[in-house]
Amino acid sequence: MIKVVKIGGNVVDNPEALARFVKAFAAMEGPKILVHGGGKEATRLSGALGIETKMIEGRRVTDRQTLDVVTEVYAGLINKRIVAMLQAEGCNAIGLSGADANMIKATRRNPEPIDYGFVGDIDPKEVNTEVLKALLESGLTPVFCAITHDGKGTLLNCNADSVASAVARGASRIGETELIYCFEQPGVMLDIDNPDSLVATLTPKGFAELKEQGVVSKGMIPKLTNSFAAIAGGISSVIIQHADAIGTEKGTKLLPDD
Amino acid sequence: MIKVVKIGGNVVDNPEALARFVKAFAAMEGPKILVHGGGKEATRLSGALGIETKMIEGRRVTDRQTLDVVTEVYAGLINKRIVAMLQAEGCNAIGLSGADANMIKATRRNPEPIDYGFVGDIDPKEVNTEVLKALLESGLTPVFCAITHDGKGTLLNCNADSVASAVARGASRIGETELIYCFEQPGVMLDIDNPDSLVATLTPKGFAELKEQGVVSKGMIPKLTNSFAAIAGGISSVIIQHADAIGTEKGTKLLPDD
Repeated sequence: MIKVVKIGGNVVDNPEALARFVKAFAAMEGPKILVHGGGKEATRLSGALGIETKMIEGRRVTDRQTLDVVTEVYAGLINKRIVAMLQAEGCNAIGLSGADANMIKATRRNPEPIDYGFVGDIDPKEVNTEVLKALLESGLTPVFCAITHDGKGTLLNCNADSVASAVARGASRIGETELIYCFEQPGVMLDIDNPDSLVATLTPKGFAELKEQGVVSKGMIPKLTNSFAAIAGGISSVIIQHADAIGTEKGTKLLPDD
Repeated sequence: MIKVVKIGGNVVDNPEALARFVKAFAAMEGPKILVHGGGKEATRLSGALGIETKMIEGRRVTDRQTLDVVTEVYAGLINKRIVAMLQAEGCNAIGLSGADANMIKATRRNPEPIDYGFVGDIDPKEVNTEVLKALLESGLTPVFCAITHDGKGTLLNCNADSVASAVARGASRIGETELIYCFEQPGVMLDIDNPDSLVATLTPKGFAELKEQGVVSKGMIPKLTNSFAAIAGGISSVIIQHADAIGTEKGTKLLPDD
C-alpha cells in the first residue's frame, strides 16, 4: 500500500507539532509520499516586504511578487527544512515541486471571473507516474510542496489538498494507494466541541446526508468533496485524522458507497 | 562523458544571459548536471528584511535568519525558476539541495578562528553516487543549489564552486566526467583587457608559473586550485569558459601534468 500523507499549514507552523509528526511519519513502513501546505510564513514574509496579501475564498491571489515569495517559502524554506528533518530521522526524503522532473503539470486558472494570478489547477492525469514509481522503487520518499509549473517556464501556486489528491491518484496507477489528510481535528466531527462525536467511517451517501443536515463545517466540505473524487478516481481509501495520529488508524475513514 | 556545469551568480542575476544559457545547456547531448550559484537576490532579500549581510573573505556569514533567506532564495526561488526554464526547453531537470535524497552531506565549519555560522564544507566522498546514477539513468538532469545538510537536521550554506567540484568527483565514480565552470570571462587570461591573451590549456605546472608571475587574478586562484584538486581526484578535465560559450570547446582547458 502506497501512503500519501498531507499536512496542513498548522502543523508546518508549529515546530513541536512538526517534529512529532516528522518522527512518526519517518517510522511508517512501506512506500510513502508527503505533501505539505504552506503555513503563515509566506504571509509574514510578504508583510515584511510590504507586499499586500489578498485572499479570495481562502485562495491566495498570486501576483508576480507573491509568486516569488511562495516559491521561496514553500519550495525553499519549508520543503528543505522538512526534508532535512526527515533525513535526520533516517527517512530518505527528496523534496520536489511539480516542476522538478516534470512531476506535476498544472494549468493557469482562467482570469475570468476572478483573476487569481499565478494560480494553477491540476489535472490528476498530469502527474508523472513513471518518475514517481522510479523514486519509490529507489526507496526514496517524495516530499511535495504545492508549487507546480505549466511546462512553458512559469511556476504556479496550487492548493496543497489538490496536489495531495492528484499525487495519490497518480500513485494509484502504480499500486494500491491510501490518502491521509492530517489536520488539527481528530477527524470529521458531528459536534466540533465533542470528541465522542467523531465519525468513524463515511461514504458519499453519508456525506450528502451530513451536508443536508448542515453538520459538516464549511472548511471541511471541499476537503471531503476532493477526497470522494479521489476515491472515485481510483484511490482505495482516504483517512482524515489529527497530525498526532499519523501511523495509527484513528480518524475518519472515507469509503466508496458499497 | 558526464558533464557537470557550474554557473555563477552573474548569470543567475541577468535574465537574458540566464535564458541564453538555459537554452544552450538544454541542447547539450548526454548526461549532464547543473550547479548554480546564488547571485545578489539573497543580499537584496536580507536587506529588505533588515538583516545585515556580513561577508568575510568573500564568504557569507550565515546566522539562523540568513540561513532561512539563502534557503528561500537558492533552494526555492532560483532553483525552481531554473528548473521550470529547463523544462520549457525540453530538458527534464530535477532541482536538488544536498539534503534531498541525502545527495551531499556537509560538515559545519569549525567556529574557530572565524565563526561563519551555518556554513558547511563538503567531503567529496559524501556525494550520494548511487542516487545520482539512478537519476542520470532515468534521463533526468539534476540541478543543484549550494544548500546542503549535516544529516542531523540542519541545513548548511556551502560554496557553489565546491559543490560543483564535489558533485563532479562523485560523478567520476559513475563514468568519465568533465567539469565546466561558466563565468563572465572567456577563460583564464594573461591580460584581462586583451581577449587574445586567453590561455587555451593549463596544467598544474603552468598554473604554478602563472601564480609566481602574478598573472592570475586573485578571484581566479581558488577556482583553479579547486579545479586541479578535482582533476587529481579523478575528473578527466575542467573547462573554464564564458557562460555564452556553453556547449562549445571555447575557453581554458585544465589538464593534469603529463
